[in-house]
Amino acid sequence: MRNLRIVVVNTIIDHADETDTDLQEQAERGKALRIGLLEAGYNIIASLPADQYLPERIAQLQPDMIIIDAESDARDVLEHIVIATRDERRPIVMFTEDDNTSTMEAAMEAGVTAYIVAGLQAERIKPVLDVALARFRQEQKLLTELSDTKHKLAERKVIERAKGLLMSRHKLSEDEAYQKLRSMAMNKNLKLSEIAQRLLDVEDLLG
Amino acid sequence: MRNLRIVVVNTIIDHADETDTDLQEQAERGKALRIGLLEAGYNIIASLPADQYLPERIAQLQPDMIIIDAESDARDVLEHIVIATRDERRPIVMFTEDDNTSTMEAAMEAGVTAYIVAGLQAERIKPVLDVALARFRQEQKLLTELSDTKHKLAERKVIERAKGLLMSRHKLSEDEAYQKLRSMAMNKNLKLSEIAQRLLDVEDLLG
Repeated sequence: MRNLRIVVVNTIIDHADETDTDLQEQAERGKALRIGLLEAGYNIIASLPADQYLPERIAQLQPDMIIIDAESDARDVLEHIVIATRDERRPIVMFTEDDNTSTMEAAMEAGVTAYIVAGLQAERIKPVLDVALARFRQEQKLLTELSDTKHKLAERKVIERAKGLLMSRHKLSEDEAYQKLRSMAMNKNLKLSEIAQRLLDVEDLLG
Repeated sequence: MRNLRIVVVNTIIDHADETDTDLQEQAERGKALRIGLLEAGYNIIASLPADQYLPERIAQLQPDMIIIDAESDARDVLEHIVIATRDERRPIVMFTEDDNTSTMEAAMEAGVTAYIVAGLQAERIKPVLDVALARFRQEQKLLTELSDTKHKLAERKVIERAKGLLMSRHKLSEDEAYQKLRSMAMNKNLKLSEIAQRLLDVEDLLG
């Protein structure tokens, strides 16, 4: 568990910004988080700011988990995170001081696995990450089941339409149409739904 | 949000147990949690032990949220909670000292919305409950979508089977069978899948 490859998203300070005490404070917090993670034995592979390059960097780095430190600007950070994890879900842990209920709801919508308000104590980091991982796995199971079920439903619709097509074109009974579809699939070494889709595509082309 | 009807599940001490310091400590913790909730303005409608009567009591009380204080015996408490929320999901927040990963996984499986290790500080209670509610709503949306999709798939299977039955019994084309099914449904004021199921039931009876 401890060799999770982690990307930390937090405020990175340019030297030019050193007069801004708010930014300084955020950077300090981010540093404390990184120290806590390192001391707990986690593997931080990158520490990145939440900007437009984030999605690309995450796609390159393929981390096992994303930890966000967003003191008060949770909502702004969320936008970049949504884009960065749209194509591939990852466990996301967000530490923040923003206890606005609508920001929480937005974070859940955006796929944040754990949203922790005012909970950035080094000794709590490990259990928080463990719970986030367990939660993420549970959610992935649910999402996989949902997408499998949707897929089955879609396949069934395609097969039915193709069967209907064969029945009307070739004056076949339902059973004959099904048998024809099956033998076509076996000949082409395709799934029933794939051959059905091809039939419909050809029909579309020929009008 | 603050008038959530909350049931707290924790160790309740019999007078006979007063010599057991472990139990005493757990009861103290439970008291601290209840005080924290009351001070934060929440409405505790009952405080119950995790025993075989819990499912019945929860069914009677219909709380908006269940908060569990399980210091070290998270796994034992989970069993009762699973039974108590099997028929109707509710947001469940579990405070515990048990940071065993397999217990966490079991808690997620059991439908625990928030599993908080070593986080029982009064000032953190409100954001923890708020996040748990947001998370619960998000999960309910997902589960509803899943059950709707499964339902559609099941309906479609029933309709197909009934269509096939009509086709073979009455030598109808697929389209004719579908039209027959539709007019039967309209006459009986039933859904297509309901009339289809009835047809299949009758077929079953007549063999």
